[in-house]
Amino acid sequence: MFYHDDELQFEVEVEDPNPRFAKMLQQAIGGAEGEMRVALQYMFQAFAVPAEKQEIRQFLMETATEELGHIEMLATAVSKNLEGASDEAREAAREDAVIDEMMRSGQPRQALSAGLHAMPVDSNGAPFTGNYVIASGNLAADMYANVMAESTGRLLATRLYEFTDDPGMKDMLEYLIARDTMHQNQWHAALEALGEHRPVPNSFDQSKENQEYNYTFMSTAREEREDPQQPWTQGEAPDGKGDFSYSPRQPGGGNPDLDEMIDEMHNEVK
Amino acid sequence: MFYHDDELQFEVEVEDPNPRFAKMLQQAIGGAEGEMRVALQYMFQAFAVPAEKQEIRQFLMETATEELGHIEMLATAVSKNLEGASDEAREAAREDAVIDEMMRSGQPRQALSAGLHAMPVDSNGAPFTGNYVIASGNLAADMYANVMAESTGRLLATRLYEFTDDPGMKDMLEYLIARDTMHQNQWHAALEALGEHRPVPNSFDQSKENQEYNYTFMSTAREEREDPQQPWTQGEAPDGKGDFSYSPRQPGGGNPDLDEMIDEMHNEVK
Amino acid sequence: MFYHDDELQFEVEVEDPNPRFAKMLQQAIGGAEGEMRVALQYMFQAFAVPAEKQEIRQFLMETATEELGHIEMLATAVSKNLEGASDEAREAAREDAVIDEMMRSGQPRQALSAGLHAMPVDSNGAPFTGNYVIASGNLAADMYANVMAESTGRLLATRLYEFTDDPGMKDMLEYLIARDTMHQNQWHAALEALGEHRPVPNSFDQSKENQEYNYTFMSTAREEREDPQQPWTQGEAPDGKGDFSYSPRQPGGGNPDLDEMIDEMHNEVK
Amino acid sequence: MFYHDDELQFEVEVEDPNPRFAKMLQQAIGGAEGEMRVALQYMFQAFAVPAEKQEIRQFLMETATEELGHIEMLATAVSKNLEGASDEAREAAREDAVIDEMMRSGQPRQALSAGLHAMPVDSNGAPFTGNYVIASGNLAADMYANVMAESTGRLLATRLYEFTDDPGMKDMLEYLIARDTMHQNQWHAALEALGEHRPVPNSFDQSKENQEYNYTFMSTAREEREDPQQPWTQGEAPDGKGDFSYSPRQPGGGNPDLDEMIDEMHNEVK
Amino acid sequence: MFYHDDELQFEVEVEDPNPRFAKMLQQAIGGAEGEMRVALQYMFQAFAVPAEKQEIRQFLMETATEELGHIEMLATAVSKNLEGASDEAREAAREDAVIDEMMRSGQPRQALSAGLHAMPVDSNGAPFTGNYVIASGNLAADMYANVMAESTGRLLATRLYEFTDDPGMKDMLEYLIARDTMHQNQWHAALEALGEHRPVPNSFDQSKENQEYNYTFMSTAREEREDPQQPWTQGEAPDGKGDFSYSPRQPGGGNPDLDEMIDEMHNEVK
Amino acid sequence: MFYHDDELQFEVEVEDPNPRFAKMLQQAIGGAEGEMRVALQYMFQAFAVPAEKQEIRQFLMETATEELGHIEMLATAVSKNLEGASDEAREAAREDAVIDEMMRSGQPRQALSAGLHAMPVDSNGAPFTGNYVIASGNLAADMYANVMAESTGRLLATRLYEFTDDPGMKDMLEYLIARDTMHQNQWHAALEALGEHRPVPNSFDQSKENQEYNYTFMSTAREEREDPQQPWTQGEAPDGKGDFSYSPRQPGGGNPDLDEMIDEMHNEVK
Repeated sequence: MFYHDDELQFEVEVEDPNPRFAKMLQQAIGGAEGEMRVALQYMFQAFAVPAEKQEIRQFLMETATEELGHIEMLATAVSKNLEGASDEAREAAREDAVIDEMMRSGQPRQALSAGLHAMPVDSNGAPFTGNYVIASGNLAADMYANVMAESTGRLLATRLYEFTDDPGMKDMLEYLIARDTMHQNQWHAALEALGEHRPVPNSFDQSKENQEYNYTFMSTAREEREDPQQPWTQGEAPDGKGDFSYSPRQPGGGNPDLDEMIDEMHNEVK
Repeated sequence: MFYHDDELQFEVEVEDPNPRFAKMLQQAIGGAEGEMRVALQYMFQAFAVPAEKQEIRQFLMETATEELGHIEMLATAVSKNLEGASDEAREAAREDAVIDEMMRSGQPRQALSAGLHAMPVDSNGAPFTGNYVIASGNLAADMYANVMAESTGRLLATRLYEFTDDPGMKDMLEYLIARDTMHQNQWHAALEALGEHRPVPNSFDQSKENQEYNYTFMSTAREEREDPQQPWTQGEAPDGKGDFSYSPRQPGGGNPDLDEMIDEMHNEVK
Repeated sequence: MFYHDDELQFEVEVEDPNPRFAKMLQQAIGGAEGEMRVALQYMFQAFAVPAEKQEIRQFLMETATEELGHIEMLATAVSKNLEGASDEAREAAREDAVIDEMMRSGQPRQALSAGLHAMPVDSNGAPFTGNYVIASGNLAADMYANVMAESTGRLLATRLYEFTDDPGMKDMLEYLIARDTMHQNQWHAALEALGEHRPVPNSFDQSKENQEYNYTFMSTAREEREDPQQPWTQGEAPDGKGDFSYSPRQPGGGNPDLDEMIDEMHNEVK
Repeated sequence: MFYHDDELQFEVEVEDPNPRFAKMLQQAIGGAEGEMRVALQYMFQAFAVPAEKQEIRQFLMETATEELGHIEMLATAVSKNLEGASDEAREAAREDAVIDEMMRSGQPRQALSAGLHAMPVDSNGAPFTGNYVIASGNLAADMYANVMAESTGRLLATRLYEFTDDPGMKDMLEYLIARDTMHQNQWHAALEALGEHRPVPNSFDQSKENQEYNYTFMSTAREEREDPQQPWTQGEAPDGKGDFSYSPRQPGGGNPDLDEMIDEMHNEVK
Repeated sequence: MFYHDDELQFEVEVEDPNPRFAKMLQQAIGGAEGEMRVALQYMFQAFAVPAEKQEIRQFLMETATEELGHIEMLATAVSKNLEGASDEAREAAREDAVIDEMMRSGQPRQALSAGLHAMPVDSNGAPFTGNYVIASGNLAADMYANVMAESTGRLLATRLYEFTDDPGMKDMLEYLIARDTMHQNQWHAALEALGEHRPVPNSFDQSKENQEYNYTFMSTAREEREDPQQPWTQGEAPDGKGDFSYSPRQPGGGNPDLDEMIDEMHNEVK
Repeated sequence: MFYHDDELQFEVEVEDPNPRFAKMLQQAIGGAEGEMRVALQYMFQAFAVPAEKQEIRQFLMETATEELGHIEMLATAVSKNLEGASDEAREAAREDAVIDEMMRSGQPRQALSAGLHAMPVDSNGAPFTGNYVIASGNLAADMYANVMAESTGRLLATRLYEFTDDPGMKDMLEYLIARDTMHQNQWHAALEALGEHRPVPNSFDQSKENQEYNYTFMSTAREEREDPQQPWTQGEAPDGKGDFSYSPRQPGGGNPDLDEMIDEMHNEVK
């Protein structure tokens, strides 16, 4: 089960509140590359780990738990970017400016639905969805999903970094980018620890797969092209279990020859 | 632009139509691990490739184009699993059996919305969504997304394989599993060809990221645990740019200290 | 920030695994009345609490954190309902039975996407969505949202209770139903502690609202009906700030008199 | 069944059209707190009322029907905010201004998909979804859902009020806020009329629920905290059926001890 | 504004309750071809009609209003299919049978979320979405959307008809099919009344569109095919404004020649 | 299966990049009226055509394939509108301007998730969904869906045309508008070729539908109105199979008389 303490994992300060940046930060909360995704992804992956692999369960669950704290940091950052500043001079002007900015280029629901706070939506305003969570039951597939999530997540954080000049926001993002560096590396380390796990899943007897087309790059160029002699058309394949070849032609599977459906479907035009 | 010819990439035959399997095949069409996802993912990735990397654009686009043909194969497989068999004896019994089976354990919309044909939905009946498509603009991140997509895709295909005894369906899946083997390998080959690309994105000046926490596994166990001495807590990190360490304690970021919001939000209870 | 320990909040045992019940349990994980909703709802509400109300932030956050542990319990229950039993005799028969049951009345993606484990979807197979989360920034509105969430949540748990005879599942549900009893009560207690907070939000100057129609039940029956003399058509209103009345007629607002739009919209048929 | 007449329930005038406000009004049409939600929520609740409670069915259905008229009012308000003004001088300048404003801070689809009219989407541009509708079959749970809907709905209306200076829009919102006051009160009145209905559902034999933990606030603070002596940790619970207590420790449920899944799932990395 | 009376538009009786059919009926409520769609579609279309076309507004709104009553009929049908039968003998057996059937082939949320009543979801269990509603602001486009909606709607109703033997359900569907016949015809009649309205929108100066390719069927067959001499490759086009021709070749637009993006996007792999 | 060649179907040039227009172009890619919709709609319709109607399958599939090329053109247009111009003078200023414009009125995810490229989302930022695809299995219903799709699609293109002054964008849109003219016409031609196909589906024995109400316009005006003598209340119906009539009164279906549900649903408030 889970516990909480009052402190943030890392401090979150905003010198110059900026509703536009508050909107963009939503991507790192409820977006496809955001912290809700990784927190829930690692959590559901952990839920599926059998008892005999307790260290893997802990590995996944501890990182899931860390990501929950990142949602908290980013939600704090959103609220602070939507807050006016504290000194009296700016206080006077604050209200109209915030409302004006929200109408011009803020995210409407941050005001209308959440009273100028964070929401479980992305920067375009679309809700977080369980569709983002990949937890396949197969550890190797899951690790690749995690490498992907941390790669796009760090990419997002670096892009956000370019959209702000606020020293507090830069500090926070430098921290989150560092954590993404670690997380990318840890999932790679786990993949290496799995040994030869490819092609995923490696528990499927590879002799059953079609042996003619499992290491062939099939061109679909309209006009047949010669082998472009790329790393994916020749040489040993990265899984070490076959050699790449190149085919300018696809196997022909014949026309799909469907029957008419039963009358009860009323597909026919009489 | 795109072209089409009438033949399938590989033949699709069904000996013993099975509406339950037709429902499951939807996952490979409109599901998170399905062919619509990879076709559109590789296509949108290709759309973003600058002119000077024409060979990468072709690489992505040709595989995107192949995946479009896989949607066609699977849609044919769905229709054939929902068709009655061709011999007269079974024809007589066909209609009630199909309707009965659809009511018991089929996917209702395959009958009600599509007249016993395939739909752009997953096996649970949820619609395909653009959320599945990952096209980040960064080639390394995209390649990891593709490795993930082909890993979960091949996993799905092997699971479908276990759910059928139909020889035609097994043939088709053996072909698709082989193609997934190739596609996994080709994206790995592209990653290798990129050279040292980690951490993704490697264009962000890594000296800017927080240097204290970028290679440290931070435990979030409630009770502090000793270093479990796993591959992700010690030794050189896979990106070759740091050494793993372990911390049973998180840095403390202080309490989030939010101000009250402006009165116009009516957040206050008076 | 958040922490985790390895133990579940309450034990989860399944004597007689049942894939059909595994499907239904998904509603309590990723459904509109489920634990992901309340965990995230209380968490986002907590994120918006200003520093001066630290005890409210803790109140919300500690319950959010408890709900995270309920997701964990339920995900364990799903996996165990999809597992075969452990004794050898049943082991032999296990595989075909599970596969057959999944095809007949299981949730396809639990097998195909998750390898017979839990997913962030509801019992119909639709993904969890951020739309379920209500965090308005106004504490009174939030508390009513929480009472609603725990009322529909406890209702769901009692219905699940009726769908199972498994002693382990009954134990778990008796525990979760008890926690829902507590949570319903605690949000009500918080509402009482707010004092007279109605109508929500009570920070809006009520003299500004239209004074003719703010305590009148307006019938929309086609044929005018007499006052049905119900508790909502007469007597003092529950907020203590007006007396109910009844109107069989609506005020008339005139026809909506829209102009044509600008030519550039091409709304016109010439 | 339903009927309609041409007049609006209350007049809708706009003096100074404002595309930014048109975007925000969408929240009150197709948003989580909007009129489509309450209209459909009360309607589906009414659909489930048994014949013997005809007065409840009428109560719900008549208010559902009123809310349909509010969608009509708000859609009129959106169109009028997207219309140019009528006098000739402004007419000349109107077209470019509208197009410019839509590009800068309007909602693109109001122009592109609807020709400058209302749509069933929220202010962020996300579509209305049936997920917003809560109709549980249990009257007490439904009434709490309705109190919540009218609380967040009135909160939204007061926030919209702060975003406009247009006298016509203020009139309309003063009317809608008044109706929300009434609706909040009427659902509360219905709850009072139900008598002692807590905990919801009260038809579940409460002696079956776990008796140790049904009135205990369980802290999930990482460091054990003393009883904060809040209204939710001591005294009689609001449902009158138990006394609150406080526990700094959770019951321990043991580790989740999952078996490996069947081989056919290919969860294993060999 | 809207009104309601207690009677259904047409009677709804169920002799032999059938939870499987209750699931299928959901498609006609909350599905892409269902009554929520047409009710809201015609309503939003009506909302956009300018004052000078009052008779069109009434035409659309009166049919929208009728469709609201169809939702009510179908929701009644769902509840009655989920009810047990009334005679005592079956009453005794009823409860287990309903619960068993819901577990085997019912829609779980009809029980778990709605207490055995209708919901705003489709037969696959996916929620109704505002995406289904087409209200373009252009009357001709809207009428084609309505013809489409009533064509797929009547098709759905005839398919549902084939899935039931219940006399009450057949009566209801015969009525709804008849109404769909009328509605198809009325939208066609409105299109005819518009006179020459094609191509839609006809307010766009057609001389501006590319004159080489506006009446040419362009084949995208990989191998060039001869003109198949179909009604869409030769003869006068239905809009009477051009003659069809056939082209086995597409115009060539050159390669898309994208620049690299700005460094701040971190698209580059260094 | 599908093929691709490197050239666009038609050239795409942008003289004056405009991030606001890039946002609007998304509607034509991933929106309800966009090219993803028609490409997939025609493709899934083609997938359902039986072998004996090969020419119809080719007709649908070739146009589906053309639409794939339109996605490619529009994605190129989006990227070019997000690119800075190529000359050095503007290059210097480019970066801040793009970032500033994206923050003010761009679509955040085009930068944050896609590195300033196209995405499978609409102009409001909502993801493409399989819900947009209509493929009913019945050719007449499908053709009406296609006429609707091309009508709203051409309407969208003409509206986009009004939002740009860029000569390159105008060229591209003049081409796409021309293609929509062709596609509208070709689906109409196919409908004409079907002969008398109404009411859709015409394979349902029309004598079974309710004969009293199948050609009657039923008014739902609250106050009974006289026959407005419109084309839909009198004269022969467009399908030639009945004569319109007008009824100011609806048939009365009695009250919906639902029983209480089984106790296990806990619908009751005791």
